[in-house]
Amino acid sequence: MQADVAEKEIAEQRLQEVNDALARGMFVQARRQLHNLPAWDVALLLESSPPKARAIIWQLVDADEHGDILEELNEEVQKSIIRQMAPEKLAAATEGMDTDDLAYVLRGLPDPVYQEVLKSMDEQDRQRAEMALSYEEESAGGIMNTDTITLRPDVSIDVVLRYLRLKGELPEATDKLYVVNREDKFIGEIALSRLLTVDPAGLVKDVMTPDVQGIPVDMDETEVAKLFERQDWVSAPVVDADNRLLGRITIDDVVDIIREDAQHSMLSMAGLEDDEDTFAPVLKSTRRRTVWLAVNLVTALLAAFVSSLFEDILAQMAILAILNTIVPSMGGIAGSQTLTLVIRAMALGHITSSNTRWLIGKELAIGALNGVIWAVLIAAVVALWKQDLMIGFIIAFAMMANLLAAGLAGVTVPLILKRFDIDPALAGGVILTTVTDVVGIFAFLGTATLMLS
Amino acid sequence: MQADVAEKEIAEQRLQEVNDALARGMFVQARRQLHNLPAWDVALLLESSPPKARAIIWQLVDADEHGDILEELNEEVQKSIIRQMAPEKLAAATEGMDTDDLAYVLRGLPDPVYQEVLKSMDEQDRQRAEMALSYEEESAGGIMNTDTITLRPDVSIDVVLRYLRLKGELPEATDKLYVVNREDKFIGEIALSRLLTVDPAGLVKDVMTPDVQGIPVDMDETEVAKLFERQDWVSAPVVDADNRLLGRITIDDVVDIIREDAQHSMLSMAGLEDDEDTFAPVLKSTRRRTVWLAVNLVTALLAAFVSSLFEDILAQMAILAILNTIVPSMGGIAGSQTLTLVIRAMALGHITSSNTRWLIGKELAIGALNGVIWAVLIAAVVALWKQDLMIGFIIAFAMMANLLAAGLAGVTVPLILKRFDIDPALAGGVILTTVTDVVGIFAFLGTATLMLS
Repeated sequence: MQADVAEKEIAEQRLQEVNDALARGMFVQARRQLHNLPAWDVALLLESSPPKARAIIWQLVDADEHGDILEELNEEVQKSIIRQMAPEKLAAATEGMDTDDLAYVLRGLPDPVYQEVLKSMDEQDRQRAEMALSYEEESAGGIMNTDTITLRPDVSIDVVLRYLRLKGELPEATDKLYVVNREDKFIGEIALSRLLTVDPAGLVKDVMTPDVQGIPVDMDETEVAKLFERQDWVSAPVVDADNRLLGRITIDDVVDIIREDAQHSMLSMAGLEDDEDTFAPVLKSTRRRTVWLAVNLVTALLAAFVSSLFEDILAQMAILAILNTIVPSMGGIAGSQTLTLVIRAMALGHITSSNTRWLIGKELAIGALNGVIWAVLIAAVVALWKQDLMIGFIIAFAMMANLLAAGLAGVTVPLILKRFDIDPALAGGVILTTVTDVVGIFAFLGTATLMLS
Repeated sequence: MQADVAEKEIAEQRLQEVNDALARGMFVQARRQLHNLPAWDVALLLESSPPKARAIIWQLVDADEHGDILEELNEEVQKSIIRQMAPEKLAAATEGMDTDDLAYVLRGLPDPVYQEVLKSMDEQDRQRAEMALSYEEESAGGIMNTDTITLRPDVSIDVVLRYLRLKGELPEATDKLYVVNREDKFIGEIALSRLLTVDPAGLVKDVMTPDVQGIPVDMDETEVAKLFERQDWVSAPVVDADNRLLGRITIDDVVDIIREDAQHSMLSMAGLEDDEDTFAPVLKSTRRRTVWLAVNLVTALLAAFVSSLFEDILAQMAILAILNTIVPSMGGIAGSQTLTLVIRAMALGHITSSNTRWLIGKELAIGALNGVIWAVLIAAVVALWKQDLMIGFIIAFAMMANLLAAGLAGVTVPLILKRFDIDPALAGGVILTTVTDVVGIFAFLGTATLMLS
């Protein structure tokens, strides 16, 4: 145990040493240290470095490590690096890369560079690349590898075993061999564990698991990930519309998709992109965030406009101005809780037509209950603080109304957005706050106008 | 391809049919339909049903399916179901469960029931259960299985192959066999793919990969998941402090942890728990959410209190009351973007002592740039809307100040919280909004007081 904890600390320490060497300009030392780091650690170092340091580190890394490191980098950082590489160096780095990684790298290139890289590749790699690029990026075809081992149905297991021994090494994460007929159509599979336990005299077709459903090459990668999670697969075959075997998808690529999909909602809710690079240059980050601030400014201005409808009463009583933010803010919080839950439930496939009505009822009930609790409490606080029972009553009423609106909007806004094919995680928060701001201000200042003027 | 898409639609349709049958009270039909659903689908149905429907569905399901379904359920729903089961039925359902699932179920039980369930188990299951329960829930020990196949170093591969053929079937997700010495200490491993490709005449010790680091049994599950992602493992051995082999962890359990960890930040940021059940009873959900609303009420009251310090000027100019929410709201949005990015970067291990200063500088620069953009814009809007240049200038200044504060707080708040071992995703948002509310109001109303009174 000690050994492993120590190993982790050593990894961190090594990264720290490289950072120190770079900071002190000791490039010869840094180059030697980088040489000893696994590709995964160099990728981590690049991802956690500011743009200038990234360029220096990349120059210090051995050229024959370039391919392995590129494979481990996240999209954003990978793009920023390959855009600065000479086409022939890039072609060299992609040699022997897995098909899916190759396509991933090539997709990041501007068109003229891309053509040049293709030209610098050898024939076999070029063909693989062109095939991989013919599939949608976020589909089964975009994440599959072509390194399958295929068997014919009427050979004996013994022959298979001898063939494998001759072959010497199997592709990474191979847990199954696939059986295809003369037309290359996928007809079954044999797990390695089964191959080891059956009688070698049997035929492939008698031992294989038949009627396995291959993954259609154009299935969306999120659907693929769900199938893997549901079936506990380690790898799965990919087929075309005619059931011809095209390749296989392995769990390591699926794990990345599962993590990215799970993070997607959190990032979208803050108006960020999935592959947002924490260490991107200032100008690039500013540009992206400006859009989100612009959207939210509209919401803020709308709230201000609603308040301005009640300018008369605000001019008469400054106390209303002071308390005016409390009800919208509580509504926003309650609404985001419901919204977050519904967005997660949608991602998990928990929302169906049979349970939405129950869910709306539930969230309204919670809104009503919490409304009563916080209405009484805020009324008491305000009545004591400002010695004004009437204002206590007004804010209590507004709180009730807004927490009900928050519960209702928290469920219905994402459902409606989804029906219009708009990402609820991206647009849901803005719309929800608009609702809770407007309802909160109207309920508070409107009631105040009715009761006090 | 059509076949698979159709399969998914059929699955959804089947669930819909069960729901319809239940809604119409046709329980005999529902029972038959449930009987034909795979355990995974029944689990999904239970997870997406309100409490009452859950109880009915559970009674309609075959008792010998109980174990398989329990394994697939999320913690919260699983707990609510096992609490209503009779101990002897529960004991029967856990028969033959994987060790990690068994421990997971038992941990959810109140103590007296737990004792009774243990008593109703057969000797072997009880021993397995007691061992599994001796490890921390969220550690390697808590997620490992004990179904490893072990080999001795000095037997020949040929003997191993014959042994496997005799055995007949290997445990699920077996991709490696483990080699232990006479004291049960872990000394190496052989992948199935290697077993199939080497010369059968060789000895295990010559063919195995030696010096493999086992996962320490007390390693935190999040660390385990990181190792799996980093090394692209399908399974990995678990060892005790003396390097004795205890069991193995498989990728299917790790995938759950990766998804939960990735979702954790999003749920925490809304003050929700990881295993929050969307369809929990109203009272339970209300109780949980009340705590979060209470915390946020303090923030809202603090903001109101800060505004109340400027009651004089608010009483003089209602326009200030109307515009008072814009600057805090924009600060909150800009700050959450930075906060979300930093929280994600922390989870990915991207934040180190060498890059924090650069990151603070970057976020301040973005704050300054966005500050200038939005200051000019909001000044123009306000000057045009309210025909008042001075108020335009005041709000512009406040916007600048607050976007700078948002950038600074967005980076430093999570870093400080982490140093005190407080979850930045849970507490970060509240603290950040407090900062942007207070700074925003002070900057706007304070400057207004200085310039206008």
